[in-house]
Amino acid sequence: MPLTLDPTEGVRVPDRALRSWTGRLVERVGTPADVAADVAEVLVASDLRGIASHGTARLPQYLKLIEARVVDPAARPVRERGRLAFVRFDAKNGWGHHAARVATDDAIARAREAGAAISVVRNTNHYGIAGWYALRAASKGLIGVSLTNTSPLVAPTRGRLPMLGTNPIAVAAPAGRFGTVTLDMATSAIPRGRVEVAARRSETLPVGWAVGPDGSPATTPEAALAGALLPLGGLEETAGYKGYGLALIVEVLTGILGDAAFGPNIVGLFSTEAPSNLGQFFMAIDPAAVDETAAFGARLERLVGQLTEAPRAPDAPGPVLYPGQPEAERSERNSRDGIAIDREHHEALLALAARYGLPFPAARSLS
Amino acid sequence: MPLTLDPTEGVRVPDRALRSWTGRLVERVGTPADVAADVAEVLVASDLRGIASHGTARLPQYLKLIEARVVDPAARPVRERGRLAFVRFDAKNGWGHHAARVATDDAIARAREAGAAISVVRNTNHYGIAGWYALRAASKGLIGVSLTNTSPLVAPTRGRLPMLGTNPIAVAAPAGRFGTVTLDMATSAIPRGRVEVAARRSETLPVGWAVGPDGSPATTPEAALAGALLPLGGLEETAGYKGYGLALIVEVLTGILGDAAFGPNIVGLFSTEAPSNLGQFFMAIDPAAVDETAAFGARLERLVGQLTEAPRAPDAPGPVLYPGQPEAERSERNSRDGIAIDREHHEALLALAARYGLPFPAARSLS
Repeated sequence: MPLTLDPTEGVRVPDRALRSWTGRLVERVGTPADVAADVAEVLVASDLRGIASHGTARLPQYLKLIEARVVDPAARPVRERGRLAFVRFDAKNGWGHHAARVATDDAIARAREAGAAISVVRNTNHYGIAGWYALRAASKGLIGVSLTNTSPLVAPTRGRLPMLGTNPIAVAAPAGRFGTVTLDMATSAIPRGRVEVAARRSETLPVGWAVGPDGSPATTPEAALAGALLPLGGLEETAGYKGYGLALIVEVLTGILGDAAFGPNIVGLFSTEAPSNLGQFFMAIDPAAVDETAAFGARLERLVGQLTEAPRAPDAPGPVLYPGQPEAERSERNSRDGIAIDREHHEALLALAARYGLPFPAARSLS
Repeated sequence: MPLTLDPTEGVRVPDRALRSWTGRLVERVGTPADVAADVAEVLVASDLRGIASHGTARLPQYLKLIEARVVDPAARPVRERGRLAFVRFDAKNGWGHHAARVATDDAIARAREAGAAISVVRNTNHYGIAGWYALRAASKGLIGVSLTNTSPLVAPTRGRLPMLGTNPIAVAAPAGRFGTVTLDMATSAIPRGRVEVAARRSETLPVGWAVGPDGSPATTPEAALAGALLPLGGLEETAGYKGYGLALIVEVLTGILGDAAFGPNIVGLFSTEAPSNLGQFFMAIDPAAVDETAAFGARLERLVGQLTEAPRAPDAPGPVLYPGQPEAERSERNSRDGIAIDREHHEALLALAARYGLPFPAARSLS
């Protein structure tokens, strides 16, 4: 996930205060306290990691869906059927974050018994950053995988209309002194938000990011926003069919395997038209089934050490990184200094504070 | 995997004759008949699918490793330890194709019981096309995954030396009237063979394929061959860190999880210096654990139907395809007409035929 640059205008809020306020706000709309705590935990983790686009800035959209009765805030996921290493849940159209946390913990528990285990979830909603659920497994010494389908934004190679979501892949593993390796990536070349940023800055777009409504490469943000994103790899000649293939495999393991909505049939995630009925996939693998967990972590630590000490290309802007390193460093800093929230985001939260009569925590101005 | 263009000079051989000859040849160097049958099956499947680079054209290299006593042709994989859904095998440095087939079948059998199951294999060798093992699961109604690490050819983002292999990802699933969806892709932007083709044609290279030995983008095939391939996505500004992340995750699930060699520590796959000690990962997921298998296939068929009928971009060279479609079509044609083998490939097999006293099957000239 692309990290948001630190804002220059706005406020800094301690993560504990923001988590507590978010939990109480989510409870106000009819969410049980334990479910609300999961939502707050995942959203604030995203803010801590510098992924502002997937954190508390989404609260206005989530609450709008609940007010419109499109999402049921009181729903609890139900384990439907399956076998020891593969189980399906029905989220009953409740909070995606909670159902995903429950399904992840269930997979972790079964992986400790069986060595590896999968949960798929259907009838669910947006779950924030995919990486949080993978990281939950990694923080307990297991390898974690988290996949979700999303509403269509990406054109298949040779196509011109959005048919697949940005369908992220997240995988995390314990890595000794490096903490975890946490890959969390959309299978599109870039996120839609990056095109929106280009529009605000009046930038032109490089070939390979998006196509316009006619299917030819979009060179302006306006054409891209009216058209479709391209999959990772870009056009066909630069292997965009690989990103298309990855997006399709995510769809196979989520919407198709989970018997949820899929591909072009998913309504907008934040549309009040109808429930999204997303599909999600969680897997935990316990290295201790074949080896000592510490031995696994020590091997990965050695590889990450070799990578981060690798000789650099002459124009490299810094050392070789490992997946999740920038997010982990940002999270550590934000835990210490407070989470920097830009002015627009702060004003949106103040509006919710006023609307629900729940004063926003004391915050220090950035400017 | 990129399909080889049909050669204009060479021969056409029926797949049955080529499979039988390959099996007998592999037996000649000390391989038990059942192991040799697996090797022949996988290599000829690659030729059938149009992936000439991974089929019988590799026989001279495989036999050289066996003659040099770097690979043990008589070894059989041993199931070491694990739990129901996650087991580790030691391939005992034998034929990679056989160990991978055994590990795949073992995962399929355990997935039928547990819903999903993983095998990792260590101390193994090159296994041909990754997709064959995924496809084996899909042909039995399960979702199959196959991953392998390979010797270092790819530079991590910001690095200038090869540190990771082209580490392929293969996933296959049953798709109703479409047969299967079979993604089989290297996590590098392009395969090394594509650079070799560019060298023969004296082409220049686009930015994003490779870097030269100094770490700057390679514009000539010579610089690329002396340097390193780039991961899927290319340079950092075009999201090459995603391909790097995927290559690293493949390494985590194969070499690191399997306690095999990993990353920059792997010796060349066809080097007679020492055994490769590759790590491989196989997973099978049984949709019938939560659903009827036919229902899963029907849903995927519907999605693939929507994708292949999607409106095209104006300059598209053909309709939207699904992963594995060109390979499946080529395989059908080659099964009917015989496998087209180019002159160089044919001469290499004739040389083996003479060396081992095993006449090459009757073949029809292409010209």
